[in-house]
Amino acid sequence: MPRVSTDQLAARRQEILDGARSCFARHGYEGATVRRLEQATGLSRGAIFHHFRDKEALFFALAEQDAERMADVVAAQGLVQVMRELLSSPQPLDAGWTGSFLEVARRGRTDPGFRARWRAHAEALTAATEQRLARQAAAGTLRDDVPVPVLARYLELVLEGLVSQLAMGLPADHLERVLDVVEGSVRRR
Amino acid sequence: MPRVSTDQLAARRQEILDGARSCFARHGYEGATVRRLEQATGLSRGAIFHHFRDKEALFFALAEQDAERMADVVAAQGLVQVMRELLSSPQPLDAGWTGSFLEVARRGRTDPGFRARWRAHAEALTAATEQRLARQAAAGTLRDDVPVPVLARYLELVLEGLVSQLAMGLPADHLERVLDVVEGSVRRR
Repeated sequence: MPRVSTDQLAARRQEILDGARSCFARHGYEGATVRRLEQATGLSRGAIFHHFRDKEALFFALAEQDAERMADVVAAQGLVQVMRELLSSPQPLDAGWTGSFLEVARRGRTDPGFRARWRAHAEALTAATEQRLARQAAAGTLRDDVPVPVLARYLELVLEGLVSQLAMGLPADHLERVLDVVEGSVRRR
Repeated sequence: MPRVSTDQLAARRQEILDGARSCFARHGYEGATVRRLEQATGLSRGAIFHHFRDKEALFFALAEQDAERMADVVAAQGLVQVMRELLSSPQPLDAGWTGSFLEVARRGRTDPGFRARWRAHAEALTAATEQRLARQAAAGTLRDDVPVPVLARYLELVLEGLVSQLAMGLPADHLERVLDVVEGSVRRR
C-alpha cells in the first residue's frame, strides 16, 4: 500500500465533505443514497466509508463543520447576517455552509434523536449570538432596555421562522426588508 | 327514523368537532385513529362519518373553524395576541382554537398537498393581519417608515418561528418578553 500523509488524508476527507454537502442539500438526508454520494464525491463507497463510519457519521461531521462556519459568521457579523446569507444562497445547490443548514433543521424537526445529539451545537450557536450581542452592548450600539438573552432568543426565533419558510420552499418576498426591521429592532435608537 | 332539526344537526356536528380537536392536538393527525376519535367524541364511527366524509374532511373542517377564530383574534387584537395565546395555552390538551393550530402547521410542513389546499386560509390570515396593521397605521400607532406588507410579513415570520418551536416541544423561556420586543418593533416610536 502507498503511504499517505496526514495532509493527504485531511484533504481527501474534506473533498468527501464538500461533495456530500451538495448531495444532502439537493436530495435531503434520506434521499442522499450511497450511490448518489459516490456520484457527488466522485469516489467509491469504500473510499467514502474509509473516512466516515456510515452516512449518519458523514452527515454529522458535515453539519458540525458548517455549524462552526456559521458560528464564525455570528461572531464576526451577527445572527442577522447568517439569515441574510441563508436568504441569498441559491438553495439547494449551494456549496457553502448554508447547504447543510436547512437539512439539519429538517432533521431536527422530524428526528428527536438527532435533535438531542445536535443540542450541544445549538447551544454553541446561542452562546455565540449572546457573545456578539454583549460586545455590541459594550460598544453602545445595542438597545439597553431589553436583556441580552431575550434579544438572542428573539433573533433565534426569527431565524427559526426563516428556516421553516425556506425549508418549505415558500416565497421569500419582502424578507430582506423584514431582516432590516429585525436588525433595527435590536439596535440602540 | 326520528326527525332531527337543523339545529340539532349543527349541535351534533359541533360536538364532534370539539371532541376531535383535542384528539388531533394530543395524537397528531396520523395518531388520531378512528377508534380514538370515537373515544374523544363519545360517538360511534357511523355517527361521526355521517357528518364528515372521512378523517381528512373532519380535520379540515376543524382547522377551518379554528382559522376563522384565529382571524377574529387577529382582527380584534393583532397577530402578536395570537402568538401570546399560543404561548399560554397548555398544549396539547387545549380545547380552544390553538388546539388544531400546531397540527395544521405540522401537516403544512410535511404534506405539500395539504399545504396547497390550505393556502386560501393562510392568505386570509395574511389579509386579516394587513387590515389590522392598516387600521393601526390610520390611528397613528404604527411605525410609518416600513410598508404594512413588510410588517405583516415580519409578524408572520415570527409566528412561524414560534409555531416551529412549540411544535418541537422546545422550552418557551423568555418568549413572552420576546413578544414584547416584537410588539414594540412595529409600533410608532
